[in-house]
Amino acid sequence: MKWSGWGHEGTFFTDADKPALRPFIMRHLGVDVARATSTPVTFAELPVPPPFLPSGLAGALAAAVGVEHVSTEPMDRVVHARGKSLRDLVRQRRGDLGRLPDVVVRPGSEPQVEAVLRAALGADAVVIPFGGGSNISGSLEPPAGEARTVVSVDLGRLDRVLSIDAGSRVAQVQAGVSGPDLEAQLNGQGWTLGHFPDSFAHSTLGGWIATRSSGMQSDKYGDIADLTRGLRVVTPAGMLVVRPVPSTSTGPSVREMVLGSEGRLGIITAATVHVHRLPSRRVIVGYLFPTWAASLAAMRDLAAGEASPSVTRVSDPEETQFSFATKKRSSVAERLKSKALMTFLARRRGFDLEAMCLSFIGYEGSERRVASERRRVKRIVARHGGLSIGSGPGALYDQKKFDTPYIRDFLLDRGVLGDVAETAAPWSALGTVYANATAAARIAFAQLDVRGYVMCHLSHSYHSGACLYFTFAFTPSGRREALEEYDVVKSAIQQTFVDSGATLSHHHAVGTEHAPWLEEDISAPGVALLRGLFDGADPGRNLNPGKIVGSPPDALASADGARDHAGVNFDGPSRRVVAESVSAAAAPVPPPPAAPPPAPAPERKAAPQA
Amino acid sequence: MKWSGWGHEGTFFTDADKPALRPFIMRHLGVDVARATSTPVTFAELPVPPPFLPSGLAGALAAAVGVEHVSTEPMDRVVHARGKSLRDLVRQRRGDLGRLPDVVVRPGSEPQVEAVLRAALGADAVVIPFGGGSNISGSLEPPAGEARTVVSVDLGRLDRVLSIDAGSRVAQVQAGVSGPDLEAQLNGQGWTLGHFPDSFAHSTLGGWIATRSSGMQSDKYGDIADLTRGLRVVTPAGMLVVRPVPSTSTGPSVREMVLGSEGRLGIITAATVHVHRLPSRRVIVGYLFPTWAASLAAMRDLAAGEASPSVTRVSDPEETQFSFATKKRSSVAERLKSKALMTFLARRRGFDLEAMCLSFIGYEGSERRVASERRRVKRIVARHGGLSIGSGPGALYDQKKFDTPYIRDFLLDRGVLGDVAETAAPWSALGTVYANATAAARIAFAQLDVRGYVMCHLSHSYHSGACLYFTFAFTPSGRREALEEYDVVKSAIQQTFVDSGATLSHHHAVGTEHAPWLEEDISAPGVALLRGLFDGADPGRNLNPGKIVGSPPDALASADGARDHAGVNFDGPSRRVVAESVSAAAAPVPPPPAAPPPAPAPERKAAPQA
Repeated sequence: MKWSGWGHEGTFFTDADKPALRPFIMRHLGVDVARATSTPVTFAELPVPPPFLPSGLAGALAAAVGVEHVSTEPMDRVVHARGKSLRDLVRQRRGDLGRLPDVVVRPGSEPQVEAVLRAALGADAVVIPFGGGSNISGSLEPPAGEARTVVSVDLGRLDRVLSIDAGSRVAQVQAGVSGPDLEAQLNGQGWTLGHFPDSFAHSTLGGWIATRSSGMQSDKYGDIADLTRGLRVVTPAGMLVVRPVPSTSTGPSVREMVLGSEGRLGIITAATVHVHRLPSRRVIVGYLFPTWAASLAAMRDLAAGEASPSVTRVSDPEETQFSFATKKRSSVAERLKSKALMTFLARRRGFDLEAMCLSFIGYEGSERRVASERRRVKRIVARHGGLSIGSGPGALYDQKKFDTPYIRDFLLDRGVLGDVAETAAPWSALGTVYANATAAARIAFAQLDVRGYVMCHLSHSYHSGACLYFTFAFTPSGRREALEEYDVVKSAIQQTFVDSGATLSHHHAVGTEHAPWLEEDISAPGVALLRGLFDGADPGRNLNPGKIVGSPPDALASADGARDHAGVNFDGPSRRVVAESVSAAAAPVPPPPAAPPPAPAPERKAAPQA
Repeated sequence: MKWSGWGHEGTFFTDADKPALRPFIMRHLGVDVARATSTPVTFAELPVPPPFLPSGLAGALAAAVGVEHVSTEPMDRVVHARGKSLRDLVRQRRGDLGRLPDVVVRPGSEPQVEAVLRAALGADAVVIPFGGGSNISGSLEPPAGEARTVVSVDLGRLDRVLSIDAGSRVAQVQAGVSGPDLEAQLNGQGWTLGHFPDSFAHSTLGGWIATRSSGMQSDKYGDIADLTRGLRVVTPAGMLVVRPVPSTSTGPSVREMVLGSEGRLGIITAATVHVHRLPSRRVIVGYLFPTWAASLAAMRDLAAGEASPSVTRVSDPEETQFSFATKKRSSVAERLKSKALMTFLARRRGFDLEAMCLSFIGYEGSERRVASERRRVKRIVARHGGLSIGSGPGALYDQKKFDTPYIRDFLLDRGVLGDVAETAAPWSALGTVYANATAAARIAFAQLDVRGYVMCHLSHSYHSGACLYFTFAFTPSGRREALEEYDVVKSAIQQTFVDSGATLSHHHAVGTEHAPWLEEDISAPGVALLRGLFDGADPGRNLNPGKIVGSPPDALASADGARDHAGVNFDGPSRRVVAESVSAAAAPVPPPPAAPPPAPAPERKAAPQA
């Protein structure tokens, strides 16, 4: 992973082969992307402080994993300090490193993980498990003022499929395996996990479990919460073992407590997960719908019908336009074909080309099954005025699906902030959530007096609702700190989620980024349950402290709590700070020109931060 | 509900219309069921002690729900004292009432539930929520030595479907509604929940959620854990509200903490659950397989294939024989047809009629869907040597499915103890679990020197495994306390579950009955997580104390813990006591004549009770 950006060294997003992109960005963000205008500081310039690693702990860690797997190298510490949120990228690029971990250890077995945790707890150190490092919710960052030694436990050496139970269609897999490595090992024996998040290339099984990940084909395979049956977790109380049974009524689900626990209960070392035989046929078909409303209605009817596609995805008009703008240079024949399609849509089908929505629906299984599912879907698509544009665009989407995260670095190099926010809500609330979130973003752009763009797609369908995935970008005004303006936009969108009956995140977890809204989502007693769970499992608050929920208010007043106080002082968003910074901003606050009024109006609360 | 038995007054199981049953029971249990030989004590004989209800609390409860909804009537207290486990029935019948609740309150609204909890906590009383009263795991019983006032909160007045969101296919429903009442309200608007546990007629939505229930059609609709999206729970910390979102990554799932919580976190007042349009076609088809091994393999292949039936159920040879023995008196034509089928199976298909297995597979949906699913299933059934016997037997099974629990009372009236034990395991472990559990039961019968019968069916299929549901019956020897002999048999079966990689219960919850095996199932750190969760939510241990996990050992030594000590002194099973009672028994311990050796041998541990 790059220390200041997404993905592999040497891999970059480029507009060079996408002729429509430069004018598109110029039109919407007022920026010419022809040349990079901003570069990260060099690694040599980074102010890396010396690690705080008492020799006793250093010795115990070396004894646990071997001295060659204990690193205090600056590059290791910088890479393990954070994930890849927009906030992380911006700060890394300018050399604002925050609280680095003091040491990175790489255990090679479960007993070594146990020895690491024992050593760390013995020295009252903080332990932060590290998978692929692609988290975008602040789940990996040590608390800013953490006075204790911080140990980053990199699970990357635990990368093997331990066994496959073909009869039960489950595999026991070590937690540190990356997406591509896992699929390669499974595919080699004719199996697949079927879990493909955007971060696939740079995330791990343990990370997916710790953050409740979803993948592009989760409509078929299930979210990671559905796929995960058995678990092995090193905890302060010993080895937590969840049996890989298909279902159980043994009280509140311990399995579901580990899912989404973000390292606060222990270190996941292995999981038993569903595997499926590689499908004999797999295809992603493109469709176009006349409007966003028609798209949502079609996806809802698909979920209610008897078809069960592997992917249901549809972009709003803004994202559809963006998709067209990122098309690669095409042949004359392709351009003519595309032009003919647009003419047909506009003249014969009455499509408003600015309002139409691009959709991808995936199918997997036997030839016969795929064919019958496609027929079922076609009928529903047609009922909502949509039509198929074949499997060509789908294949293209399928190929480039993991490239999207690289675009944030491309934009940062050009002074533009781009990021995402995603949620899930019941079908009947999706229209309101969408209207409110896009309106909130546009109002925020107007308040900040910046050029901005917001777009959205529906990414996962369920019986009762779906995930809406928003992407936004804007050109900071230069009148304020860039991240301050980012907070205004991101917070405005997040606030509409919880105000509109949606959840604060469908699959990006809580970390520190979303923690300010947790109580509004799951209610104060819900937060109290999580606190009780974490405090019971980790009375010393050594395990990734401050994530999901901060320290309880009363702990701050107590003697024991004083030590943890610093643990809640993150650079993350605060709704109060955000509200103040907007009202204090000198920027004019005109009514947003094009934004529809939110329905109902998102209520901006200035409640104290939890 | 009857105070001493299952179901409605006036409804009973009878063998009068089942000519083959009397000889069947005589052959296997050595009992002539022609006449009842045992009757419960009369209600008037019951030693009902006066309630311990301080006037302050009585007043507060009356203020909360209205004086007419606060009852200290003996019948109310006796009915609310327990569920309907075999242990419960035996004790009730002989007038051994245990620790009765002191008062039964019936709130009519969520604010009234809040007021009840406030009043109870204010008086340091124990609160036990009560739904349909059909729990068979000891989840409803007050701790034997409980010194505080015990308040049973009957949710029966919270019985309404509050709203149906047709677009999202969810309904918000009050927790106290019974199965039939709920389906009637939903069916009236064209919807169904699709949740049909054996206890359907006498259980409630809140009870299903609190115990992680499964229904007969859960293969299609999902277990209650899948169906439940939103929750409203009155807790000591206030209203816990889980939003009805389709999926979320907000940390460890609070929704999944309420599921299976058995009243230990609070009182569930409402839930938002999946609903489905009533299917246009619904049919249950009967099949016969030549062997149990072939049956399991067929069910596994069904789960791995592209068909998705609503019910997958298959009985082992012993349960198949029992099913045939409970057939109603039939016409000469029917008997001839049945005889012809048996002749065909034996002569033309080579079936061993003693080894064959009866299966029911259900289908729901459009005519077209049902037809194509039946074709898919037929191919898989045929591959395993099975054949369809049409929808007649399936319709019969469908009609009498809720009558089964009545048979325990019929047997108790004839001096026979009958009960169930169920589990779930990966497909590859099911054969071993089955062999070990049936062997353990037969060894126990032999050790006790009693006539006994054990049978099993597979009741729910999942991607990675299935539920095995065992039923056993035996005629107590008369040389020991009947429940002591029952404990030997039930405990032997439960022990094989956890020893064979299965779970201690798939859908009957933990309560007090299964608590002794919890640590062996979910590991000591898993139990510790549950303790932390419960203690955090309920520091005074007022909420259904002692269920799922007892008090922690260290709490018993502490000042605060002393009060709770009595709370763990249940009449439930204890593996240690069981082991001692067997070894102390004077009964000869011959090798079991017909039982196959368990594979691997179930390990009988004498670990101290958790």
